[in-house]
Amino acid sequence: MTATTQQLARFAVNSQPSDVPDAVIHEAKRAVLNWLGCSIAGSRTESVDSALAAVNDLSGPRLATVLGRSERLDISNAAFVNGVSADVLSFSDTHPATLMHPGGVVGCAALALAERGKVSGKDFLHAMVIGYDIGCRIGLSVYPWHYNRGWHITGTAGIFGSTAASGRLLGLSERQMVWALGIAATQAAGLREMFGSMCKNLHIGRAAQNGLLAALLAQKNFTSSEQSLEAPRGYMRVLGENPNLEIVTADLGTRYEIATNTYKPYPCGVVIHPIIEGCITLATRHNIDPAAVRKIVLRCCPLVLELCGKKTPKTTLEAKLSVFYSAAVAVVARRVAEREYGDDCLSNPVVIRLRDSVTVETDAAIREDETHVIIEMSDGQRVQCHIDHVTGSVDRPMSDGDMVEKFRGLVEPMLPKARIEQLIEACWNITQLDDVSTLARLASTGNTPAA
Amino acid sequence: MTATTQQLARFAVNSQPSDVPDAVIHEAKRAVLNWLGCSIAGSRTESVDSALAAVNDLSGPRLATVLGRSERLDISNAAFVNGVSADVLSFSDTHPATLMHPGGVVGCAALALAERGKVSGKDFLHAMVIGYDIGCRIGLSVYPWHYNRGWHITGTAGIFGSTAASGRLLGLSERQMVWALGIAATQAAGLREMFGSMCKNLHIGRAAQNGLLAALLAQKNFTSSEQSLEAPRGYMRVLGENPNLEIVTADLGTRYEIATNTYKPYPCGVVIHPIIEGCITLATRHNIDPAAVRKIVLRCCPLVLELCGKKTPKTTLEAKLSVFYSAAVAVVARRVAEREYGDDCLSNPVVIRLRDSVTVETDAAIREDETHVIIEMSDGQRVQCHIDHVTGSVDRPMSDGDMVEKFRGLVEPMLPKARIEQLIEACWNITQLDDVSTLARLASTGNTPAA
Repeated sequence: MTATTQQLARFAVNSQPSDVPDAVIHEAKRAVLNWLGCSIAGSRTESVDSALAAVNDLSGPRLATVLGRSERLDISNAAFVNGVSADVLSFSDTHPATLMHPGGVVGCAALALAERGKVSGKDFLHAMVIGYDIGCRIGLSVYPWHYNRGWHITGTAGIFGSTAASGRLLGLSERQMVWALGIAATQAAGLREMFGSMCKNLHIGRAAQNGLLAALLAQKNFTSSEQSLEAPRGYMRVLGENPNLEIVTADLGTRYEIATNTYKPYPCGVVIHPIIEGCITLATRHNIDPAAVRKIVLRCCPLVLELCGKKTPKTTLEAKLSVFYSAAVAVVARRVAEREYGDDCLSNPVVIRLRDSVTVETDAAIREDETHVIIEMSDGQRVQCHIDHVTGSVDRPMSDGDMVEKFRGLVEPMLPKARIEQLIEACWNITQLDDVSTLARLASTGNTPAA
Repeated sequence: MTATTQQLARFAVNSQPSDVPDAVIHEAKRAVLNWLGCSIAGSRTESVDSALAAVNDLSGPRLATVLGRSERLDISNAAFVNGVSADVLSFSDTHPATLMHPGGVVGCAALALAERGKVSGKDFLHAMVIGYDIGCRIGLSVYPWHYNRGWHITGTAGIFGSTAASGRLLGLSERQMVWALGIAATQAAGLREMFGSMCKNLHIGRAAQNGLLAALLAQKNFTSSEQSLEAPRGYMRVLGENPNLEIVTADLGTRYEIATNTYKPYPCGVVIHPIIEGCITLATRHNIDPAAVRKIVLRCCPLVLELCGKKTPKTTLEAKLSVFYSAAVAVVARRVAEREYGDDCLSNPVVIRLRDSVTVETDAAIREDETHVIIEMSDGQRVQCHIDHVTGSVDRPMSDGDMVEKFRGLVEPMLPKARIEQLIEACWNITQLDDVSTLARLASTGNTPAA
């Protein structure tokens, strides 16, 4: 039997755009739209300002766009900074079976390469599909042990996605693709301990940039182990335990991981989405006065506290990983968008009082896309609701219309209206583009795109 | 009690050159001499050619020297490529308690920064001492579990050394240094599975480059967890198990890890050095005819087979990690330098026959710097010797004269004689240099150094 690393490399090199079903292609377009919206909207944050300030002086030929901004960088540093902006609002896509957010990682590497040399929309989208598939399949092999150990899987497995997509666009041979996956394996890094700090965003930027580097090195015949994934001391056994080798290559070329992709309706940790939806539902349905609430009781899956257990968040990044804060602000504002994680809401005494009244009861029998919310009023009245499948989950996906609305809401403060509509159209019609760098030109504020 | 990360950051920020004892300063000079020799001598190898080809087009302002060559790169890519050359001959220094090779990692990051803005030799050497200390102390906290799990500790702990040295040269505040160590922790990567491929060299280059990036980001207030090392899901518990927290900060500012630094007399895996010395000793003492040898029996510590167990190496990189090949070529050539790992020796049938006659018996009671070598002749005669402490070990260090001879031997094919002597003198007198980038200018083949 052919070894795992080689099988994946062979698939990445040999897959053809015409092999990929239309529904999968359509999902890839949705993923591109969502990622571009996140990167553009996240581009004027402290994380991005700081990352850009650190690397600007190092930049080589400024061939690539910093999405949502006027600056340009070399393709490697652009992949890094755009990856940071893709993650900073915690509004990315999610691969449900691994909790990976592949869009920014794969997209930022592929787009940077497409700005260096002409890449058609068809080839670009195909590289995205391949990248998602390789990254998420490797993620599946080590999940959940890997994630529980403390690895931020979007970085540590996502890097294989940016590597495969870049390697595909560079036209690597099978052997070079094997090396590229090895160079990725030996760069895999990123700790969940960083959640709540800018380093969470760093992981996405570095996974994009380092995957691109892996492919560029392999193209120049920089060698690695040729069993980097499955060897006794390879990636899957050093960063994983008892890895699932079968799942990595099962139905390769038939089952596409991107087909299961989901998108967030709220800009925060995905596991608290059902709770936000439950809180908004109750507050709206019963016209709840926050001042009259005695306590909020949440029943949800254990992962909620593990990933989003910050009790007294001080910053936007921390608040997005706080189930306590998010439930409270959802009841008060009856919506949860970027503004609800801003300084005004963070320091609002009504929100803070409510946040401290939240009790979380975890139950392993409750699914990740499910929750029970109970709100108890000071007069003893209780209202409750059960969210069975939250919007944006596999069983209740966001519609194309929802996706467009999300995109518009995200980028409205950043780009002129006409440009936004051009970008939306370019995403839906991406397979007709001769040169996909059109997307980057439209997403830049520094130049006028070609007609 | 102050948390580990913060204690290390405070030390890195507050230590003064005048705090460091003369003997420690002298050891740092030896480390610089050894690392420069390795980088210069390793600079015309396939690993370096390939790495340089991949990053050359990405380079920003070419402020920094590619050691031993005429090319120049931006400081980040120079740290990478010089780190690759520092490792490629497997001739680096060794921190015995962790088997780390810190010289290239710490040195290449610090020298790149010194090429961007004037740094005195005194400050440079002090940054080297700090970098070694932080990197090796963190290495100690996770060794040996970490190494046994499959992590290449020179990369995964070395990155803290390049970070601390860079952070020191950038004048980071204590809080910024805490962030820098966190940014390093969440980039820590490198698998032992890569030994025998160019990715082993990649680890050193990337640890230098990524540590430099960590410091540059922290300087721009890019935040990380502030307990990145000791947190329940921090570096020491994700990449380690039951970490030794005490050893990290014990005698901080009194015990300097660089003081224990050792240097290799042979350009290969350090655990096979006693065996090479034993084989050369026997072959010379008994004037052994390789054709008359029936078999070679080695008794040594178990780590030898674990790290250097390749039976039939095909390439130079593999041969340097083969105890079988190294013992054979030592008997045949009665010396082991770069030439003994070249293609001529690799394909020599006498060496190959002897290599296949080698038996290794491991014994946990034998130390890493010790071995018993038995050579059995076809006429039944047996000769043997016991190497108690190999040259270059803690108990039998290389003298300053040995170091200079090693340096000359390494760089003679690369640089004119006069330049070599200038470099040696500059290393011994480094604390008198106003601008340490003199070292880089002397180590370049592309320009004439200022008088």
